[in-house]
This record gives sequence, C-alpha cells and structure tokens, in this order.
Amino acid sequence: MDLLSIKDPSFLKKMDIEDLKELSDDIRQFLIEKLSRTGGHIGPNLGVVELTIALHKCFNSPQDKILWDVGHQSYVHKILTGRAGEFDSLRQFKGLCGFPKRCESEHDVWETGHSSTSLSAAMGMAIARDLKGEKSFVIPVIGDGALTGGMALEALNHIGHEQKDLIVVLNDNEMSIAPNVGALHNVLGKLRTAGKYKRAKDELELLLKKVPAIGGKLAATAERVKDSLKYLLVSGVFFEELGFTYLGPVDGHNYEALFENIQYAKKTKGPILLHVITKKGKGYEPAENDKKGTWHGTGQYKIETGDLIKPVNAPPAWSALVSDTVLRLAKKDPRIVAITPAMPVGSKLEKFAQELPNRMYDVGIAEQHAATLAAGLATQDMKPFLAIYSTFLQRAYDQVVHDICRQNLNVFIGIDRAGLVGADGETHQGVFDIAFLRHVPNLVIMMPKDENEGQHMVQTAIEYNSGPIAMRFPRGNGYGVPMDEELKAIPIGTWEVLRNGTDAAILTFGTTIPMALEAANLLQKKGLSIKVINARFIKPLDEKMMAELLNSSMPILTIEEAVLQGGFGSAVLEYAHDKGYYHNVIERMGIPDQFIEHGGVNELLQEIGMTTEDTVNRLLTMLSKNQKRASV
Amino acid sequence: MDLLSIKDPSFLKKMDIEDLKELSDDIRQFLIEKLSRTGGHIGPNLGVVELTIALHKCFNSPQDKILWDVGHQSYVHKILTGRAGEFDSLRQFKGLCGFPKRCESEHDVWETGHSSTSLSAAMGMAIARDLKGEKSFVIPVIGDGALTGGMALEALNHIGHEQKDLIVVLNDNEMSIAPNVGALHNVLGKLRTAGKYKRAKDELELLLKKVPAIGGKLAATAERVKDSLKYLLVSGVFFEELGFTYLGPVDGHNYEALFENIQYAKKTKGPILLHVITKKGKGYEPAENDKKGTWHGTGQYKIETGDLIKPVNAPPAWSALVSDTVLRLAKKDPRIVAITPAMPVGSKLEKFAQELPNRMYDVGIAEQHAATLAAGLATQDMKPFLAIYSTFLQRAYDQVVHDICRQNLNVFIGIDRAGLVGADGETHQGVFDIAFLRHVPNLVIMMPKDENEGQHMVQTAIEYNSGPIAMRFPRGNGYGVPMDEELKAIPIGTWEVLRNGTDAAILTFGTTIPMALEAANLLQKKGLSIKVINARFIKPLDEKMMAELLNSSMPILTIEEAVLQGGFGSAVLEYAHDKGYYHNVIERMGIPDQFIEHGGVNELLQEIGMTTEDTVNRLLTMLSKNQKRASV
Repeated sequence: MDLLSIKDPSFLKKMDIEDLKELSDDIRQFLIEKLSRTGGHIGPNLGVVELTIALHKCFNSPQDKILWDVGHQSYVHKILTGRAGEFDSLRQFKGLCGFPKRCESEHDVWETGHSSTSLSAAMGMAIARDLKGEKSFVIPVIGDGALTGGMALEALNHIGHEQKDLIVVLNDNEMSIAPNVGALHNVLGKLRTAGKYKRAKDELELLLKKVPAIGGKLAATAERVKDSLKYLLVSGVFFEELGFTYLGPVDGHNYEALFENIQYAKKTKGPILLHVITKKGKGYEPAENDKKGTWHGTGQYKIETGDLIKPVNAPPAWSALVSDTVLRLAKKDPRIVAITPAMPVGSKLEKFAQELPNRMYDVGIAEQHAATLAAGLATQDMKPFLAIYSTFLQRAYDQVVHDICRQNLNVFIGIDRAGLVGADGETHQGVFDIAFLRHVPNLVIMMPKDENEGQHMVQTAIEYNSGPIAMRFPRGNGYGVPMDEELKAIPIGTWEVLRNGTDAAILTFGTTIPMALEAANLLQKKGLSIKVINARFIKPLDEKMMAELLNSSMPILTIEEAVLQGGFGSAVLEYAHDKGYYHNVIERMGIPDQFIEHGGVNELLQEIGMTTEDTVNRLLTMLSKNQKRASV
Repeated sequence: MDLLSIKDPSFLKKMDIEDLKELSDDIRQFLIEKLSRTGGHIGPNLGVVELTIALHKCFNSPQDKILWDVGHQSYVHKILTGRAGEFDSLRQFKGLCGFPKRCESEHDVWETGHSSTSLSAAMGMAIARDLKGEKSFVIPVIGDGALTGGMALEALNHIGHEQKDLIVVLNDNEMSIAPNVGALHNVLGKLRTAGKYKRAKDELELLLKKVPAIGGKLAATAERVKDSLKYLLVSGVFFEELGFTYLGPVDGHNYEALFENIQYAKKTKGPILLHVITKKGKGYEPAENDKKGTWHGTGQYKIETGDLIKPVNAPPAWSALVSDTVLRLAKKDPRIVAITPAMPVGSKLEKFAQELPNRMYDVGIAEQHAATLAAGLATQDMKPFLAIYSTFLQRAYDQVVHDICRQNLNVFIGIDRAGLVGADGETHQGVFDIAFLRHVPNLVIMMPKDENEGQHMVQTAIEYNSGPIAMRFPRGNGYGVPMDEELKAIPIGTWEVLRNGTDAAILTFGTTIPMALEAANLLQKKGLSIKVINARFIKPLDEKMMAELLNSSMPILTIEEAVLQGGFGSAVLEYAHDKGYYHNVIERMGIPDQFIEHGGVNELLQEIGMTTEDTVNRLLTMLSKNQKRASV
C-alpha cells in the first residue's frame, strides 16, 4: 500500500492477516530504501515491524499508551502514525527525529533516547489513569538489553508490588546493541527454550495420573506440586516471582501468535509481561546475519550488497584511538582493566576484549554498576578504564561523586561522544559533563586538541595515581595528524599556547580549537593579534597561565562545545574573581540554556552561534568594548 | 569483656559460642549506653551483633574483605576492629565516623553512606583478586532494602553472569529504614517461610516413591521433576535464576546456624547468596518493638524508658512543613501525587499517606524510578511532588535531565536536607544540588528564607505549570516565624530586599540569610550600609534586581551553603559578564572544592570560613579593595 497515505493507525482495524503481511513487506522495503540514504537504526526497526503493527491493531493509540523504550525502534510506529512522508529528513536538522517526540505526534506519548525509562513512565501513566478513573491500556515496549538497566529493575519491583494493570512487552532479540550480557539474559535464554519445559509438564501430568489413588494428605500434596510445576515449568518464574503474569515466549513475527497473546493480556488483570521473540534486522539479509551489532545503527549503505558507505581513508575514530592506546599500555601494565556498559562496539573495545579477555568487562546497560565496579577495582590498586559516553555518564553521576571521587580512587574515565553528537539529538548530546563534573572534588578533567595529544593524555591518565581523572573526546574521527611513537604524560593542569597574540586571547579546548585558530587568522588580516590557548585541562586550570593572562588585561573569550552554565568559562570567571581580577573583560561562548535538537554538528553550531564568523564578531565587539572602557 | 582492649578481630578465633554470646551482650550494652548519649543508628547495629561477630570469626579481615552496604550498621565492626574507645565522639566533629572510613582502619575496605553500592564494589574486588592470583573472600553485606536499589540489581545481574567467587550476605530484617516495599520484598517473604516448602518437598519425595516402577521415559521425567522441585521448593529460585547459590534463610542471631552456613559458603564455588534473617533493634525493647522506623537512627534517648530526648517546643521540621502544605493543597487539587524513595518517615509523608493513601507512593530505595515515575505522571497532567533528599537526588540526575526537564514536565521536586547535614557527614551533605541542577534547561530552582516563605513556595510550585520546579529546604527545624493563613504564589524569578544599603550588597538565600543580616548589623555599627537580598530564586535570577545592583557598582558578596564551583555565585558572575558588567567587584562565599566531613553544622561552617565574622571580614576587605580601585 501507499505508506504516504497513512494518517493514523485506525486503517489497521479492517485489515486481515494477509493484508498485514503485505503491509509488513511494504514497510520493510520502505525502511531499507529510506535508511540506505539517511542512515538510522535499521536493525531494531526491521525487527519490530509485525510487533508494532500488531500493537497498533489491537490497541487504540493514543488513548491506549504505547511507550517505546530507548526509542530508536519507533520508525514503524512513526510510519503507522502518519509520518512516512518525512523519512527523507530522518535524523537531519529540522527533520524527523530518530526517537519518539511528543511535538511530532499525539501518538508519541513518551520521549526517550536513554534506555530503561519506559517502565517507570508507564507506571506513572497507569497510576494517573486509575486516579482519574479512566479506562485505557498502558503498554511499554522494552528490549532485553534495556531490561538490565537498574531503573528498569527498580520499576519491575515497584510494578509487581502495586499490581496495576500494565502490559509490559519484552522485545527479546537476544542482543541489544551488542550481544547481551548478564544473568537476566540467561533467564531469558531459558524461557526461550520453554517449549521443552512445557513437554516436561505434560509428561508430569501423565505421571501424576498414574499415581494410585492415595487420598488425603498426599493427594493434596500432589495438587500443590502440580501448581508449583505449572509455575516453574511453563511460566517465567523470574517474572512471576516479581508479581507479573508471564505470557510467552511468542514469535514476534507471527501475527496469529501475537494477536492471541495480546488479546489474552488485555483480558488479564494486574501487570503482564508479554515475552516476544524478534529477530533484529528481520527481512534484510545483511542486518539479519549481523552478529556484532554493526547493523544496530548505520550511516548510508548499498542496498544490494549491504556495504556500508564510509568516507575513504578517514582518520582513526576517537574511540579507537583511545581504546587502542589503553590496550597498548594494558599489555605492559597489569593494573589496567577496561569496563564498558554495553558499548564494546561503539567504544571500539573489541580488540581489547580479544587480546585481554580477562581484563575487559562488558557489564550490560548498567552505568551505575560500571562506575562503582571501577571504584571497587581501584581500591585494590588496579587501574580501571571506564569507557562511557558523555550522555550515559549522566546515569552514573552519584557513583562518580560518592564512590569514585569521594574515595579519591584511581579511576580513568574515558568520556566518549563529548560535545554535540549530531543526528541522535537532544537525548544524546554530550554537553552537560563539564557542568556536572567540574564541581566534584578530586577529579581531573581534560580534553585533547588532536589525536596525538589524545594518546599522550591516555598515558597521562594511566600514569596519574593521585585520584580520578577524566578525558573527554568527541564523536567521530581525528584529524589524521602525525602520531608520536613514544607516549609522554602531560603535566596535570598545564595549558599550551597555540598562537601568541597581544590584543585578545581565546581559551578553548578540543573540537573548538580549529575554529579559534581560524578566527585568529582572519583577525590577523585585520591587523589584530589574537592569542589562542589550548586549555586542555578543564580542571585544574593552568593557574600560572591564567594569572599571566589576567595581568595582561587582554580581553578573554572562552569557547566550549558544552553548556555555559557552570562550564569551563564559568571556571575562568570564578578564578578571576577569586583572585581579585575584577577589571578583565571575560566573555564566554558555548551552548546556551536549552536542549539541542538533532542535526549535523555544523548546522547546530551555526544555529547556536558558534561559527568562525561568530567568533570573529564576538572578539571585535569585545575589543571595541575594551577600548571604550580603557578610554573612560 | 573489656571492649576497649580489642585491637583487632583475631581474638574471636579462640572464643567458643558461650564466649561469643557473652560478647554479644557486652556489645549490645555498650551500644545502648553510648548511643543514648551520642545518638546514632541504634536499630541497624543491634540487629547485626551476631552476624558481624560471626563474619569476623569465620573470615580473616582485612585479607578477606567485608563490605558494609550503606554503612550505618558498621558500629559492631568498628568495635571488633579496635575502635570502641572512640564511641564517645561518634558522628561528632573530628570524631568517629558513623560510616566505614578507610582512613580509620584497614578493616574498612569500602566507604559508603548511599545504599546499594557494595555489590558492585565487591565484584571489582573479586575481579582484582582473581587477576592478581590471590586467594581471599569478598563478603558484601547488604540489607533487603538496599537490594531494591537499581545499581544493586545491575550488580546481581553481572555477578550471576560472571560466576566469580563472592559471598553476598543478605541481611534481611524485613524493613530497611521504613517498612520495606516492592515485589522483591514479597520474594523474600516467601523465602522466609521456606520451611513449609521444605515439608512439601519431603512429601513429594514420598509421593514419587509410591509411583509404580514405570521405567524409561517417564522415570527420567520423574527425576527431572524431582530436580526441578528441589530447585523451586527449597532454594531461592529468584536468586538461583540469577546464577547464585542460595543459602538460607538463616537465623542471624543463632551462632550455630550462622557458622554452619558461612562454612558451607566458604567451600562453595561461584557467587553465593546467604540469606540471613535479623531483627532490627534486637536486645533493646523500644528499638525491637519499633514498627515505624523511629529507632533506625535517633538522637539522645533515655535508656530506661526509651524516650527520645528532644528539644522542647521546637518549631516544626522543614520536612513536615513542606509535606503538610503539599497535603493541604492536595486535598483540594486532585492532580497532586506524592512520591518518596523509601523515606516516608524522614520526609514526614506519613500524614499524607494516611489521609490520601491512593496518592502517595513509597517506591523503595529507587531514586531513578521515583523521578521517572513522577515524569510519567506529569505527562498525564498530574502534579507529582517528588520528595527527595539532596544527596539522594544525585542518583536521579539523568532522570531529572533526560526525563523531567528535557520533556519540560510539571514535576515539583522537593529537595530535602539541602546544605550541610551535619553528623551523617561526607556522604550525605546536600551541597552539590545547585551545581548539578543549575545547568539543566527548563528547571526553576528556589529556596525559602523561612517556613512562612516556604509554605508560599509550595503554593508557587503547585500553581506553576510551565515545567519542572525544585524547592530546596534544609535539614532540621524552621525558626518558628508566624505563618500566614492564606497561601500566595511568589512570582517566579523575583528576589526580595531584606535590608537596604549603599556600600555593599549580600546576595544569599535560605539558611545563610540570618548570618548575612547579622553581618550587616555589625557593619552598620562601623558606619557601613550593607544591602541584603533574599535571592530566593537561584534560577532564574531576578534580572531586574541584578541589573540595578550591577549598575550601582556596589561590591557584591554572594553566600551559599553549597559548593562554589558552578553554584549560585557563579550564576551571578555569568550574568554580570554576559551583560557586559566587567567592572563590578563580585566575590563568592560557599563550600570549597572538597568533601565536607561530619560534625555539627556550625562547627563545619566555622571550619570552612562561613561565619558571621568571616562575612564581616570579607566585606571589609572587599570594600577596601573597591576603594583602592575607585581611587586608581
């Protein structure tokens, strides 16, 4: 059918299973074609085509509330709710968001991006429904990976206790982003093969029938035993123990099975866990055969061959640079242990895992545990390397404060995807970490200007044994700069003058350094001499250089690809005023006080006024203000 | 025995059970007497006397590592490791810490205060042990309440998967701080009564023996069934499903039972969950009979009667003021729902629970879930009141950012125990919240000067429907000021001039206002006129007042009982420089960049230089600097 003609999911009500199968094919074809040009989360969405259609056929959205955990599997939902026409702009600036977005549609009842939030939100919606005396279904759809996140487990505990009507759909594809880990995964594995338990139960009933009529106490026992067995053998005892009615496992690509179970769930009181088995990438061979997680989310690809279209001869990715350098050092330093919360692929730790399998721990989606695990290792004089995305480190804020920094433990936090991340948008921008880490005592925070300095910073972090140390690095690739053979630690709290100047100074670090240098070059043509400093230590500041700079009375512009409130620029202001420098013109450029949507990083920087041109103009204004002040 | 003579736990090895019972009595007597004078966590410690002794007898600390989750139950451990002599100074400034402290003893291998961290830390220690090829036991002791915290569940999932040797002692007293909630609690309840399941199993074996010899397939089934039953009926299937060997439940006050099970655990490979049932407050009647959690932690008390010694006619506690005002409004406003993560007593929500039981949710120790539950409620036009201590809100940082503020939802966050909390010390000081919240877009943050303004702020928060709003309030009691009958919302972002002045201005809020006023009065006697502003909105600032102030060129001193980095004072600096006010003398007083130990709040403020005298001196210095600048 013409997917562009879909306005809302009501058309599904009249469709029979043959129609739905055809629709599924059409949607798969649509996704494979569209995403080959825009990129996106192809694997997860191909896996939930039938599930999404079945949910929208059996429930009435938006009265019934369907919540997509993590949200990157909501493309089919977006098509069914009238947004097929916008897929050419998927994940692009001002285009269709790659995650549920309440402003896009009334059918997007919950926004996500981070995992494991849907159960708590759904519980809130169910409580609200009951307090208002309304009748509706609340249906969170959560993956097996997201289920291991602590807050999802907290929610399971609460939901099971309260016994609200709630239909939790467990979308189990045996891998989340990378192949899944954890004991819960083993629990699910057992459930997947529950068929054989079902047979055991049938056999048992036969057995019990053969028991001679013994009557009395023993007969009662036999009944109780039968109940227990039903409990153990057929159902998901783990979830039943937590107070859920367990249904499944159901083939998530079989409409008959889905309908039957969903209808049963609708008639059942209390919380339900509907266990649905799906195949990630279903219907597109390269994605379906993916064992590593490559097809979880991709850029452009060639449909026929499944070849990913990548820039030729791209410099190494930052994640690889950092992880490979840690690995290089780990081979000589037995203290080093790598930890990732479910991001071995994204953090490029596969080589580490291969070469030092006993010293690399993928703990699943469990940022809090990951951070405190690192702290525990550090108490035993190990040197843990916690590889974590900036946005996900938000989940471990308390563990960084209370466990790592308060105990002043030698943990090396590698903050990946720091700064704007682009297409993933609002939920994933790594722009808060400086503001939420800078005030934590004992922590050193640094960011390299390029990948060569980056490898030296890894050395710095490994050599540093006076407490926790964090290194931020951006999403994407380095610049292809020459790499030193020998690694050398950089003295803590030292900055680097990249360009001398006498009229004004720019203090910046990381990704915004090239822009600062370019602005300085442009201003040189106007006869202005701008100093550019690589403020590679965000904490502690280079106090010597700060004092020199403040004494020189040059106007200072700080630039950071991070939120302005409480950020690096604020550290500079704090330092100046603490030391009694009240006269200096100090201004800050960075991310304003708003959430930053999805789009290309350069488009976003332009939108918020962080281009070379903005920098030039800002400096010119500052210089004119400074002149005015001087002449007053 | 003379507890003061204990140097380390090695003396226990030679003791027989009669000796140990005598020792238990001595320790209980010691704790009851000492804590009646110092206050402290009496209930939890009386509950673990035998357990702690048994662990120290069966293991060799510090080679074997005993970790106390939360840590407030470590007093017996402190006595056995040579610190009985320091109990007169318990929880006092420069005295014995109420939590494990690595600098106090080599037997304190892990520091805590927040719950649910011990399993992750223990896993880190076990990994380190195995990598180093060492032999030792790692024994985290975790309560049934702490087990519901998400990070503990994340850790269980990881530990069960990795199958490291680890002995998790589950100290189950059927209540954590308040009576426990959650489905896991029900799981434990079933295990506690496992005796009857054991009988069912015995009966089953009898039954199976009576089955005629049927041979072949059916006999194999019978065997399999027997295994399954053993699995289900006798053991803790929930934990076994997660990969643990479950032992218990064991009477935690019976040495024979404890020794038998601990010895078995020591011989068993892989992760063990040893389920120990203890009685909180054991051996002291008032604490033992406590159903509400009053005796979890207390101030001074009369030993004979169990009467708590409280200040006579104290003004109402801040928590009560806030919760009661929310309740008053909730009776008229059906949107309001109260949420607490396991702190119904501390947050004084008992009355709310009693009067509006369907609209008050205690979710257990689960801060992340609590915050996102609130967000879910808010999507349905409810008005959730999330009552949470500042230090525990750290656990929900990402949920505040990603779920509440990003979606701009009408959640009212009541930040209790904001500022220094005193005796609980480092792990509990509520000094980071301004710095970790100020940079989050969409959030309003406020703090009242007294309880009358406090009740109006509650009204403000409930009336405000443009996004999330947080109100900080301190630990302890109000001032006893007269209370207005009628509640009136305070316009968002408006400050209040408390005292006019022309020489300098103090900007401050909450608990530091009296100090500021006192300093201003003292300076008036020296002929100086100091303006004092109640900066009750920390975000947004009162821009009109800020502009007036900056235009006046008066030196400005900001004061906050919170960390300086990225705090309120930094917001003032940011505003000034953003608006081009480069000439103003602005200085900040607040908590320096270090963790603040335990002690009386006034002692701590003195230690960090935040007294009236400090304020006076600081203003005098600023004024002299300003004069110098003016004359240059």
